[in-house]
Amino acid sequence: MTAPAAPLVAAEDAPVLALLRDGVPHTRAQLIELSGLSRSTLGLRLDSLLASGLVGPAGGGVSSGGRPPAYLAFRADARVIGAIDLGATHGVVALTDLAGRILSLESRELDIAEGPLPILDWATDALARLLAAARRPARDLAGIGVGVPGPVEHSTGIPTNPPIMPGWDGFDVPARLRERYRVPVLVDNDVNLLALGEHATVHPGVDDLFFVKVATGIGAGIISGGRLQRGAQGTAGDLGHVRVPFSSRTPAHGAADADLEALASGPALAGALAAAGIPATSTSDVAALARAGDPAAIDAVRQAGRDLGEVVATCVNVLNPSVVVIGGGLVLAGEHLVAGVREVVYGQSTPLATRYLTITESRSGETGGVTGAAIMLVQHLLEPR
Amino acid sequence: MTAPAAPLVAAEDAPVLALLRDGVPHTRAQLIELSGLSRSTLGLRLDSLLASGLVGPAGGGVSSGGRPPAYLAFRADARVIGAIDLGATHGVVALTDLAGRILSLESRELDIAEGPLPILDWATDALARLLAAARRPARDLAGIGVGVPGPVEHSTGIPTNPPIMPGWDGFDVPARLRERYRVPVLVDNDVNLLALGEHATVHPGVDDLFFVKVATGIGAGIISGGRLQRGAQGTAGDLGHVRVPFSSRTPAHGAADADLEALASGPALAGALAAAGIPATSTSDVAALARAGDPAAIDAVRQAGRDLGEVVATCVNVLNPSVVVIGGGLVLAGEHLVAGVREVVYGQSTPLATRYLTITESRSGETGGVTGAAIMLVQHLLEPR
Repeated sequence: MTAPAAPLVAAEDAPVLALLRDGVPHTRAQLIELSGLSRSTLGLRLDSLLASGLVGPAGGGVSSGGRPPAYLAFRADARVIGAIDLGATHGVVALTDLAGRILSLESRELDIAEGPLPILDWATDALARLLAAARRPARDLAGIGVGVPGPVEHSTGIPTNPPIMPGWDGFDVPARLRERYRVPVLVDNDVNLLALGEHATVHPGVDDLFFVKVATGIGAGIISGGRLQRGAQGTAGDLGHVRVPFSSRTPAHGAADADLEALASGPALAGALAAAGIPATSTSDVAALARAGDPAAIDAVRQAGRDLGEVVATCVNVLNPSVVVIGGGLVLAGEHLVAGVREVVYGQSTPLATRYLTITESRSGETGGVTGAAIMLVQHLLEPR
Repeated sequence: MTAPAAPLVAAEDAPVLALLRDGVPHTRAQLIELSGLSRSTLGLRLDSLLASGLVGPAGGGVSSGGRPPAYLAFRADARVIGAIDLGATHGVVALTDLAGRILSLESRELDIAEGPLPILDWATDALARLLAAARRPARDLAGIGVGVPGPVEHSTGIPTNPPIMPGWDGFDVPARLRERYRVPVLVDNDVNLLALGEHATVHPGVDDLFFVKVATGIGAGIISGGRLQRGAQGTAGDLGHVRVPFSSRTPAHGAADADLEALASGPALAGALAAAGIPATSTSDVAALARAGDPAAIDAVRQAGRDLGEVVATCVNVLNPSVVVIGGGLVLAGEHLVAGVREVVYGQSTPLATRYLTITESRSGETGGVTGAAIMLVQHLLEPR
């Protein structure tokens, strides 16, 4: 058990900090009104926040006399966060500020099956290079967030039976990173982090968001009541092995009643196309073929959208989100995937659940994973409890 | 818009009250240690809580000298809550304390289609009788919680398009009750309240619980991350119209790919039995036949369990609960319903999601609804935000 170290802010100071984290400088009088705290209690909270460096005079100016500065602001640059997003074939390491904004990043192709030691060594080296280039000493690093392409026991940061990550099962990721950096390290699966990142950057006011990633595997990240929900063992959102009802499948599209991943994942579509004599071996091959206008690829992606839609329709009835976001490599095929999802969900879910429902493509792109990893740390460090 | 009135406790006092609500009296020194507050801040919080009457000397004794009492305790009897549980055919009104414990209750058969005026008048009259019998003046009433058998916009307490509640669509339930009692009134659908009640009374330590009610309709209440999740429009848990994959259905059990409610609700089973010449018109008829050993009824209930299991299996993969509770009138058929659910869920869900999963019958019985209604008020009144 690797204990995530203490937050940067005391629980009793966090509500005042939260008021300043909206990015707008405030006066003490405004903070008293917004917080409902007495002048003396607010003064104690601000003393503590000013001492931590998380809050300072707005504009960064130094107070010239003995009077307190008129406007106070959150200093997102007080510390930095290391964000590591590891996919099956690609890795991204970023340095962010305490608002989760990316300051710089480094990426490379990799094979997650190389195992944890070489990959985490690359990531920690990359982080050292980013810190050096930004002229930030290691003591400025407030924490590290890591996303991996498989299930993780979130409380310990240890991958558990990850199907596409041989060598990572039971590996203590936080302990390895903490040999190099003595900071809190949190680990989660990549889909949860994509959901966190998309929520924070694109849909910050939405309390109920359902993010589905379709690539080598299929999984979902669930925001309910404004919080990421990981479930009892951290496996919430495991859509890959959900059975698909066959209402929308025709005989031309193969046998009914299979697992979603066997029908709609990138490799499943590539396999079906290859069997029909069209060269495709990966999600990106399928996406490229569909983008280029190949009719069989377009048809396959559209049907994958419908199959996904069957499962999303159930999730919409169960979770009643206001936004469903479709992400992952297969969305690069164009609008066909989301169109298939919409076709089935609007046809099947109850009117009350779909009246105000938006189904849309992910907008966070290749940096969605590191943004989510940084947001996970921001929440841990600045929103204790 | 009926504004739910202010909580009984200020937000800044709630954490100290929460420490005392575990039922164990504490000294000031213990509370300082548990809360991490300074002696002076804790003193301010306790002054406020003592003044409110929510906290008092343990055992109810009065301090004899000038010294503060040695032990302090939560006084769950400081105020009372009115809990109203309205079903399709049955109503229960209870008086509870601030811990959600039932002090007294009154119940009757009713037809929800009589409409809101006669039914809410009965409920408010029953509440007046319970208050009088308990010798509690109306000013002791801290709030009223109401459960209804249909979708409710929780923020306003107004039923929205409830299919089995003609006359209730758009009716302002809180406004009607507040003509009689000037207290906060919160309304929710009955399944959410059953989930809240079962969680609070039977599984208080569980963060992720999925409660399914099978009776005239089929619906679920979802506890994720320790909180009831209502979704964006308050319709989360709508299982009735989810499509059922047909893997476990045989031709003997009818056509595949229908809505869950058309396959597994009490009326659906009664209809199928009646078509086979067995007299049954309601959920309770089906349950009675199965309890009496009728083979066709047992077979129908077992298959309803499997059909429900198909949908629960998906929900288990998506939500990763540690406890699934099956409630509603059809569980009175005996173990057949839950056995069918278990058969499919353990066969289909991923090992990681089912390794620590318990699937069990509801234990809260006929008072589950009023208990849940009271817990909803307790959380609103004593856990602000």
